[in-house]
Amino acid sequence: MSNPFFKNKGPFLIYDILNFLEIKNASVPKNFEIKDIKDLYSCNNSEITFLHSKKYKDLAQKTKASFCITTENLKNELPNHCVPLIVENVLLSVSNITSMFYPNAINDDFDDTAIDISETDFKDKVIFGKNVLIGKNVSIGENCKIGHNTIIEKNVSIGDNCSIGSNTIIRNSLISNDVKILDNCVVGKHGFGFFPNKNKNLRYPHIGIVIIEENCEIGCGSTIDRGSMSNTVIGKNTFLDNQIHIAHNVKIGENSIIAGQVGIAGSSIIGSNVKIGGQAGISGHIKVGNNVEIGGGSGVIRNIPDNTKVMGYPAKNIREFLRDNK
Amino acid sequence: MSNPFFKNKGPFLIYDILNFLEIKNASVPKNFEIKDIKDLYSCNNSEITFLHSKKYKDLAQKTKASFCITTENLKNELPNHCVPLIVENVLLSVSNITSMFYPNAINDDFDDTAIDISETDFKDKVIFGKNVLIGKNVSIGENCKIGHNTIIEKNVSIGDNCSIGSNTIIRNSLISNDVKILDNCVVGKHGFGFFPNKNKNLRYPHIGIVIIEENCEIGCGSTIDRGSMSNTVIGKNTFLDNQIHIAHNVKIGENSIIAGQVGIAGSSIIGSNVKIGGQAGISGHIKVGNNVEIGGGSGVIRNIPDNTKVMGYPAKNIREFLRDNK
Amino acid sequence: MSNPFFKNKGPFLIYDILNFLEIKNASVPKNFEIKDIKDLYSCNNSEITFLHSKKYKDLAQKTKASFCITTENLKNELPNHCVPLIVENVLLSVSNITSMFYPNAINDDFDDTAIDISETDFKDKVIFGKNVLIGKNVSIGENCKIGHNTIIEKNVSIGDNCSIGSNTIIRNSLISNDVKILDNCVVGKHGFGFFPNKNKNLRYPHIGIVIIEENCEIGCGSTIDRGSMSNTVIGKNTFLDNQIHIAHNVKIGENSIIAGQVGIAGSSIIGSNVKIGGQAGISGHIKVGNNVEIGGGSGVIRNIPDNTKVMGYPAKNIREFLRDNK
Repeated sequence: MSNPFFKNKGPFLIYDILNFLEIKNASVPKNFEIKDIKDLYSCNNSEITFLHSKKYKDLAQKTKASFCITTENLKNELPNHCVPLIVENVLLSVSNITSMFYPNAINDDFDDTAIDISETDFKDKVIFGKNVLIGKNVSIGENCKIGHNTIIEKNVSIGDNCSIGSNTIIRNSLISNDVKILDNCVVGKHGFGFFPNKNKNLRYPHIGIVIIEENCEIGCGSTIDRGSMSNTVIGKNTFLDNQIHIAHNVKIGENSIIAGQVGIAGSSIIGSNVKIGGQAGISGHIKVGNNVEIGGGSGVIRNIPDNTKVMGYPAKNIREFLRDNK
Repeated sequence: MSNPFFKNKGPFLIYDILNFLEIKNASVPKNFEIKDIKDLYSCNNSEITFLHSKKYKDLAQKTKASFCITTENLKNELPNHCVPLIVENVLLSVSNITSMFYPNAINDDFDDTAIDISETDFKDKVIFGKNVLIGKNVSIGENCKIGHNTIIEKNVSIGDNCSIGSNTIIRNSLISNDVKILDNCVVGKHGFGFFPNKNKNLRYPHIGIVIIEENCEIGCGSTIDRGSMSNTVIGKNTFLDNQIHIAHNVKIGENSIIAGQVGIAGSSIIGSNVKIGGQAGISGHIKVGNNVEIGGGSGVIRNIPDNTKVMGYPAKNIREFLRDNK
Repeated sequence: MSNPFFKNKGPFLIYDILNFLEIKNASVPKNFEIKDIKDLYSCNNSEITFLHSKKYKDLAQKTKASFCITTENLKNELPNHCVPLIVENVLLSVSNITSMFYPNAINDDFDDTAIDISETDFKDKVIFGKNVLIGKNVSIGENCKIGHNTIIEKNVSIGDNCSIGSNTIIRNSLISNDVKILDNCVVGKHGFGFFPNKNKNLRYPHIGIVIIEENCEIGCGSTIDRGSMSNTVIGKNTFLDNQIHIAHNVKIGENSIIAGQVGIAGSSIIGSNVKIGGQAGISGHIKVGNNVEIGGGSGVIRNIPDNTKVMGYPAKNIREFLRDNK
């Protein structure tokens, strides 16, 4: 994962990280500098990683990380060069350490760096409406249109020939060429991710972004949340209708068509050439294959293999659904 | 019920109320002054109440009200000191009389008292974006942020350390400390309440408000309607995801977690520590207990007892649901 | 169909139309002028029509059109005076020819003709909020209110006594008297209509409009798309709650009540005096009769006759639904 937007406040000494995690007696070289926190696969030897489930033991054995936040039960899955840092709740500790490196990725207050587009260099390049605001670290390609009252908040890159509607808000997003985002959308805000806590839920950082590839269209009133530890991706030439909600870390393939009011929960992966009917819902951490058709109103709670048509709640083969519901 | 916002145009003479209800020959002291209209429980002897169902006969027997709008069938449930005013449609008459007392609670035209925040005293106290508007009778605590194009319409109290996003509209609401309301929300508008009528539906007044307690978060694009005769309440530390609709008079307890696109219909009561999966719907006038988990996509049409996990449409015990849908 | 808004760029010579469709050798008088493209029923002899399904053979036999885009298989359904123009994909060709006549009906970029209402003649006639924008070809009746940040884009007619909320966007719409449209709505944008295409989906024109008849109310955050070849219509005194999506070409009758988060897919026809519960979904091209009640959360995938109560997914008779789900 390479995050182009959030400023890494590291490096930190492993000594400080241990203190923060309240780990004592760990036999580590305390002046070791840790530059970043990453997943098992992309981590290198100056970075810290984490292992919270046996599912990832194969990745763990190959990690290049020098330190790994994990549990007593999982520590033996790590290679010798990787020092286990034993905690009670891996994800909570990862959240805390990620917050050390990326303190700006936790809360999404409104962007107070945004100024009127007519006070920026974009005023001669972009066709824009009234009251358009542009934040810091924004780039916009050739031949773009941005509608009235729209706010391009900080950390957004927009390609060529894009049309953004009115009353829309975008941040932390890479928008490719020839993309249309219609009115009243919110793209790139943090996802619905936090550790429940009796007195005050603890938000975890969202250091991922939203990537919208070429030729996509996003309908009115839709929300697309950015990823937490990975990105939210809408593949090339995929069209979304109105009032759709795409949660954090979701990946959608190319040439897919998603009808109105569909919701896709966190971390699900949707293939290419997929058609999803109106109001269908996809649970989190689900995998939907390529060339799948999902009937309107369906509730998908299990993986769907390639080339399948499903319908129902829970979604099943459409022939079965129609037979059972004559 | 104590409504801090809507101006009571009373008192009215009972004579005028009788005229309005087209009631003749009632043996009442016609110069008696009526100060307000309230429910059976909270009404005192200078106020008018109503009884429209036998369900409330116990409350009726204890009411302190001097007058009660009711039907021929129900009039004998009232104590001697309470004069029955017989009408054909109790709720319609209550709506009419409530409209006499609170004429401003029926329609929600845009707030034309709202002015730019930079013309108010809040300009030195609040961190605010461009084009922020503030209506009459608004208070805002310490250390608050209000995003671009957001409209705090009349009759809103916001606590300390609150973060309101951009393009959001709030009215008739009490927002406690440490609350976040994200972008594109509408909070505090009247609910979907009216008497159907062939030529022109008749709206009834919404004199309730929205109360959002400490540490809550409301996701992007959500709508929370204010109550009609009671309040809509979101309890402490409850988090709502994007595109959620909370109808009038709904009460949600503390520490609850409600995922994207959920809808809760009017007057339902949700407990504390409740988890509701994405796109689930709760019918109106339902009671969901504490520590309940409702699976994504469920349709809840009956009460759910404490400590239960349900799923399906209609929602049933989750083990049953999974067994029936292997 | 009479479209008052989109400028017809015709007439075109049939010669140019043939060229555009890549049709050779058709024996037609090439200088014949074609004034418009219309459906089989409303087409006259200076216009071109289309026939893509045997379902319409009765209409085809009576058409007055001089030319008809159709297939080899269907060409014999046409009367002698109507020259068949044979193509592979009728709807794609219709889309292309419609785009020739109505090039402005394909894309919905923001309306750059919109200017601040205080610079228009409406400033003395309408009660308006801050930052209200008005596009070209707009008319507004007596005694109307338009809320803050609302954009009445081009091609809108608003009747008397209408109340439009804040942050709402309207285009290509006829709004009758006494209509309320609440906050954050988008009314009149093109529908979700296009021909899927591997490299870049091809949008088809939406030359229909949205018609909202007298006394209607549209709730917060709703989207109503305009029609493609016909209009989207909300009948007299019909009330929509919050977060509703009405797709292109849908027609809803009078005195209907539609609760929150309902979605109605393209081209469906809903009767009068219909009640639809929250989160229900109606598939496309469905006919729902008069006096129908649809339970909350239902998924309607088949036609529903008059005077029926249905519930479930797929929706069935409500007694059956309740019996099956005791």
